[in-house]
Amino acid sequence: MFTYESKQFGAKRQRTVYFAAGWFTPKQNIAYTTAMEAIKANPTIDEENSYVPLENQYKGLRVDEHPELLEDKEWQTATFNGDCVGIKTSDIFLCTYVPDEEDIGCGVELGLAKSLGKYIVLVIPDEDYGKPINLMSWGVADTIIKLSELSKFNFNKMSFDFYEGSVY
Amino acid sequence: MFTYESKQFGAKRQRTVYFAAGWFTPKQNIAYTTAMEAIKANPTIDEENSYVPLENQYKGLRVDEHPELLEDKEWQTATFNGDCVGIKTSDIFLCTYVPDEEDIGCGVELGLAKSLGKYIVLVIPDEDYGKPINLMSWGVADTIIKLSELSKFNFNKMSFDFYEGSVY
Amino acid sequence: MFTYESKQFGAKRQRTVYFAAGWFTPKQNIAYTTAMEAIKANPTIDEENSYVPLENQYKGLRVDEHPELLEDKEWQTATFNGDCVGIKTSDIFLCTYVPDEEDIGCGVELGLAKSLGKYIVLVIPDEDYGKPINLMSWGVADTIIKLSELSKFNFNKMSFDFYEGSVY
Amino acid sequence: MFTYESKQFGAKRQRTVYFAAGWFTPKQNIAYTTAMEAIKANPTIDEENSYVPLENQYKGLRVDEHPELLEDKEWQTATFNGDCVGIKTSDIFLCTYVPDEEDIGCGVELGLAKSLGKYIVLVIPDEDYGKPINLMSWGVADTIIKLSELSKFNFNKMSFDFYEGSVY
Amino acid sequence: MFTYESKQFGAKRQRTVYFAAGWFTPKQNIAYTTAMEAIKANPTIDEENSYVPLENQYKGLRVDEHPELLEDKEWQTATFNGDCVGIKTSDIFLCTYVPDEEDIGCGVELGLAKSLGKYIVLVIPDEDYGKPINLMSWGVADTIIKLSELSKFNFNKMSFDFYEGSVY
Amino acid sequence: MFTYESKQFGAKRQRTVYFAAGWFTPKQNIAYTTAMEAIKANPTIDEENSYVPLENQYKGLRVDEHPELLEDKEWQTATFNGDCVGIKTSDIFLCTYVPDEEDIGCGVELGLAKSLGKYIVLVIPDEDYGKPINLMSWGVADTIIKLSELSKFNFNKMSFDFYEGSVY
Repeated sequence: MFTYESKQFGAKRQRTVYFAAGWFTPKQNIAYTTAMEAIKANPTIDEENSYVPLENQYKGLRVDEHPELLEDKEWQTATFNGDCVGIKTSDIFLCTYVPDEEDIGCGVELGLAKSLGKYIVLVIPDEDYGKPINLMSWGVADTIIKLSELSKFNFNKMSFDFYEGSVY
Repeated sequence: MFTYESKQFGAKRQRTVYFAAGWFTPKQNIAYTTAMEAIKANPTIDEENSYVPLENQYKGLRVDEHPELLEDKEWQTATFNGDCVGIKTSDIFLCTYVPDEEDIGCGVELGLAKSLGKYIVLVIPDEDYGKPINLMSWGVADTIIKLSELSKFNFNKMSFDFYEGSVY
Repeated sequence: MFTYESKQFGAKRQRTVYFAAGWFTPKQNIAYTTAMEAIKANPTIDEENSYVPLENQYKGLRVDEHPELLEDKEWQTATFNGDCVGIKTSDIFLCTYVPDEEDIGCGVELGLAKSLGKYIVLVIPDEDYGKPINLMSWGVADTIIKLSELSKFNFNKMSFDFYEGSVY
Repeated sequence: MFTYESKQFGAKRQRTVYFAAGWFTPKQNIAYTTAMEAIKANPTIDEENSYVPLENQYKGLRVDEHPELLEDKEWQTATFNGDCVGIKTSDIFLCTYVPDEEDIGCGVELGLAKSLGKYIVLVIPDEDYGKPINLMSWGVADTIIKLSELSKFNFNKMSFDFYEGSVY
Repeated sequence: MFTYESKQFGAKRQRTVYFAAGWFTPKQNIAYTTAMEAIKANPTIDEENSYVPLENQYKGLRVDEHPELLEDKEWQTATFNGDCVGIKTSDIFLCTYVPDEEDIGCGVELGLAKSLGKYIVLVIPDEDYGKPINLMSWGVADTIIKLSELSKFNFNKMSFDFYEGSVY
Repeated sequence: MFTYESKQFGAKRQRTVYFAAGWFTPKQNIAYTTAMEAIKANPTIDEENSYVPLENQYKGLRVDEHPELLEDKEWQTATFNGDCVGIKTSDIFLCTYVPDEEDIGCGVELGLAKSLGKYIVLVIPDEDYGKPINLMSWGVADTIIKLSELSKFNFNKMSFDFYEGSVY
């Protein structure tokens, strides 16, 4: 039933990621865009089936066009639940992380992802790598890499490593 | 090592499902059969490796031929544990759901699946869609679709949506 | 700092319960009322701080006076979340359980309670004890007692026991 | 064995809290101090046995006197683990929350507390109540109260309620 | 409603423990007996309502008198489930731990207790304290104390600390 | 988008395993080596992307060359965390299990794997199959097979079965 060919396939396994990131400051936005490009280039990531929160808006409604949604309990609940679906259905929790401009939303997601048993990767812009990060983010991360490493990171070889840097 | 070809593969990803359903009333049985056919037709489901409780009887024993099993603690435990294995080893929890004839067994499984972080889909026969369903089932579901949508539902695009209907 | 008196106090420990039950049929309602009285009489239960879903309606709104709430996503979400709060903040999950008229809502709650590590007690009316119950309810229960035993059950001596009866 | 007196005791039940808060800005520090006073005054909180992270420094070492600790993996791990102990051993997760100055560390803790089944209370300074808060914090909170309400909040009547305000 | 007196009560809070230990070697048995005495003496432990596996045999059957039970699936399941009830219903997981004679049963229980969010205390006989212990036991423990410290250990001040010793 | 060919692919699905085993006695080592060969031969296992703890040493440091690491808190923490990563990122928890020489480290891992919802397989050398095993290991296992069955076991047909043997 199984052939040698199918045995070979394992090497081509791809993982899905939940793409966590802030998008509220210029620096966050640059990191966001760069990380997205790296994910598309990375052959161990199944980018097509990964979950990007900004691309999964409830009913396709845009809050910049409908700011009243931000006070609407139906929209709030559906958007929060959507992000929870993204986290639990993805293999890996990938968080683009800017030390000077940390986002509390990513924090909550980090805690949820840890409890769901997801592999957690923080990606820090090269120029910020080593800077102090929050102790709790430090504690739930399985590995913390530089943004320049993301496109070639092998998501089939998941392992633990400490951050070479400080906390606050 | 990785080629463009392997990158393409992601598009063909398939998910496994746990097939929850009641099989105690005529209406439940019709829904059961129709849903099974839809699953076989759906290209995003790996039906061969999915888990159908009725096809995983402990030691192949049939309770209609051995009704004494229903009081036997070994059989009870093994059958319950088997269903738990099915839930935890499947990507998705799919529940065929008849509003007028809800099954408490599916209820317990829904609660377990939620806690295990499974994506939960309720499938309701088209003619019953919109009818009141139990509030707790409503609350743990990630999406609730019509039976006619099941064969084409993309299980690689998992998202959250509310039920357009009532609860009780 | 601690005295012998404080050491004695342990004997007076009381537990809080989440009171799960259907309230949709006459038989369910009789069991409900009887179980509530037993809880009030049981000295090992802290009834004042226990959680009774029917007594925790969202904003005190009554659905019999406001049936439109049953289609309102804000009310649905708040009521579901309220029950989840009750389950997670109580020591014990107590479910009044009528074999012939099982309630799917209790089923979902049973699954959630199991996953939260709550001690699960099913209480069956004496005249129905031994009748077939759903296999999944059977599997998550830690003990299954008769309604007449509830007022004297020692909730400080939690242990496991099998149901002496059949499943379906 | 049990007397009416012991039955009465339930009314005097007290809960322990994990006291989450930022302490990095003047506004956070004012909220911190005010919330601590409210907790001491609240008769439903067992403040003596509650967990305040700042009062549980690893080996009593102070980072202002030993800044090198912030890069020390032993200290980092022990401090993170200590906070996790505090969260899991407390009945309630209480978070002093300043909308304009949200702390990512509280975010991670919120996610962990949610998964552990803790009752989650956000406490917002009165003058900031209603301001936009992060959607993910909004989503994991069970109730969000004003700081002036904290000293009289009944932690034996835990229920769910929505935030009356906006998210971002 | 609450008085100063009730506020004081918090100081007298007591915790329940699950008493894990091997009982297969002379050294394990000495540690077992000594630890049980310490628990009875410790004013912060509610020993009466704690769970001791050996005192909770299924139906009171003794395996030394009925060795055939060890192959009986009903007895096996009930005894395993009983221990799981003990772990989940106790505040603290206390494990008497002999480095040279580690018990795999305690190992499994340690893993389950960790996941249930229990505070985990390993208690090592004084003469063995510092000896190499298994790395995985080391990793799930919140604190590791000497047997002579057990009777006075304050279980209301739960904190994290590293083992001062080696692993293997 | 999906073709019949992609539907066929499901049959070739492969699973990743976490390879738990003791390596402290000659008998454990023989079982270890034999099991590793069986895994490589099994077409339903993706051996290349599976996790073998001994092949994932922290920073590639070997403890036989650096015995001082065994007392080093950084090394201890990183190695423990690495094994936790392996368990949570693998589909299946596979444990080579020698009844007479059970390893407590495997015990802790079994408990953690159970809580993470992993499918748990114990593999016992043929000559030891049926011998008494620890009750807690028995209780968390989903199936217990002979070593000679491992190379042909279909990891795409996960089901529950009892151990045909004794416990202690």
